[in-house]
Amino acid sequence: MSERKAFIEARLSACLPPPGARPERLTDAMRYAVMPGGKRLRAILCLAAAEAAGGRAEDAAHAACAVELLHAYTLVHDDLPCMDDDVLRRGLPTVHVKYGEAVAVLAGDALLTLAFEVLARTHEARPGMIARLVSELAVAAGAAGVIGGQVEDIASAAAPTRAAIDYVFQHKTADLFRAAVRLGAIAVQASDETLENLSLFANGLGLAFQVTDDILDASESKSGEKPELSCLDVMSEAEARAWARQLTCAARAAIADLPGDASPLATIADRLLSRVE
Amino acid sequence: MSERKAFIEARLSACLPPPGARPERLTDAMRYAVMPGGKRLRAILCLAAAEAAGGRAEDAAHAACAVELLHAYTLVHDDLPCMDDDVLRRGLPTVHVKYGEAVAVLAGDALLTLAFEVLARTHEARPGMIARLVSELAVAAGAAGVIGGQVEDIASAAAPTRAAIDYVFQHKTADLFRAAVRLGAIAVQASDETLENLSLFANGLGLAFQVTDDILDASESKSGEKPELSCLDVMSEAEARAWARQLTCAARAAIADLPGDASPLATIADRLLSRVE
Repeated sequence: MSERKAFIEARLSACLPPPGARPERLTDAMRYAVMPGGKRLRAILCLAAAEAAGGRAEDAAHAACAVELLHAYTLVHDDLPCMDDDVLRRGLPTVHVKYGEAVAVLAGDALLTLAFEVLARTHEARPGMIARLVSELAVAAGAAGVIGGQVEDIASAAAPTRAAIDYVFQHKTADLFRAAVRLGAIAVQASDETLENLSLFANGLGLAFQVTDDILDASESKSGEKPELSCLDVMSEAEARAWARQLTCAARAAIADLPGDASPLATIADRLLSRVE
Repeated sequence: MSERKAFIEARLSACLPPPGARPERLTDAMRYAVMPGGKRLRAILCLAAAEAAGGRAEDAAHAACAVELLHAYTLVHDDLPCMDDDVLRRGLPTVHVKYGEAVAVLAGDALLTLAFEVLARTHEARPGMIARLVSELAVAAGAAGVIGGQVEDIASAAAPTRAAIDYVFQHKTADLFRAAVRLGAIAVQASDETLENLSLFANGLGLAFQVTDDILDASESKSGEKPELSCLDVMSEAEARAWARQLTCAARAAIADLPGDASPLATIADRLLSRVE
């Protein structure tokens, strides 16, 4: 995992405008938003899916970077004062605190745009693949995907329902997990069956990730913050834990019979669940 | 022109999530930002470039919609309180005034994402083209293009210089004009020479457009607004008018010898200039 993380960090750094590129403030903000970053979970899933499909991780490197850049943009925009109004992320000032709101909006826009630019550079030799990669990422990230999930998240935080939880978890979180593995698999020309099994895996994993996140968040003190939608608003912690276990179990079952080595994917699923076990 | 505008409006409407699509507030905001819209100048340039290159406008329809969606997103984000803080656009409340800031940020994000999704649907039969279209639009719209121009615009509005004007006009405005004609020409498989001539045309036209916009803006009362970068900060109105004439003349010269009918492009250039003559 840490080897994979280092691989992604190096590739991501090379995708970003080099330090000092004009406009320097924008370049700084983009690099600050992406580097050194967190667990790189989505990028690692993308690479692991390529291998589980029987391909080489290297062939999914562009796709992994695109997914990670896209994830970084969602964090920058989600942290804005008009959204979650977060001033810290991973212990550091958020982008808008450090660079101002205007640059934060624009740096997020630039990271989103860069995600598609990076995808368009994938596999020069097989250009037909690019249309599919761009389409998959755009649909997952767009109004019917991640952005739609974020809108519903904000809209339903004050009066949460189980239906809202299901919609927000699916679109805000699981859609990008699903896109991450699909892009990795498409980049290595996986069969439709493999793609479907990996999609099922990632969807369950994404939902389980959000459930365990809510359980972990509930145990931290969060006084004075804006209300945030949590599955614990509509179920007990024991029920949430059982749900996460069930989702992880189903996810693992979906990757029982893949052409390549699925053990890294299984390990990721187990580790996520173990955060709350 | 009005026929072309109607064609684009119909295509754009079909690209957007249908009215009522969930999340409805996001769908409403996206459609409000795009429809009925303004002159559709960039989309019309894209279609006219396809024809000037000897191709069919129809083959550039997806590209024209993508450029227009991208333009619409820049307007939504530029109007935000943390940017230009505009409350009216074309006589109507801006998106953030009508739907709130969070939805405005997200609707802009969704329009940007949709631009790439629409491009990925261009010409199913010639997928190799899509990588090029996506790359062209992403580079033009990204940190070294439109977004970079907007960052410099904000940064230099308080202390304008000629160098800042040149950078901002080139990137904030001309880069998207240039991308519009290039996408139109690429969509109909224009030769490199045609592409180069159309790029020169659109670059000059984009700069001239911004110069004439500044001249027109200066004649309107703008008391109490945030300072905005204008070429009239560094030159007289007569100098600006001469610059616009010179740019338009050079632009027209670049399209003197194209394979198809360049007269619509020439007419657009003449009309833009005539706004200040």
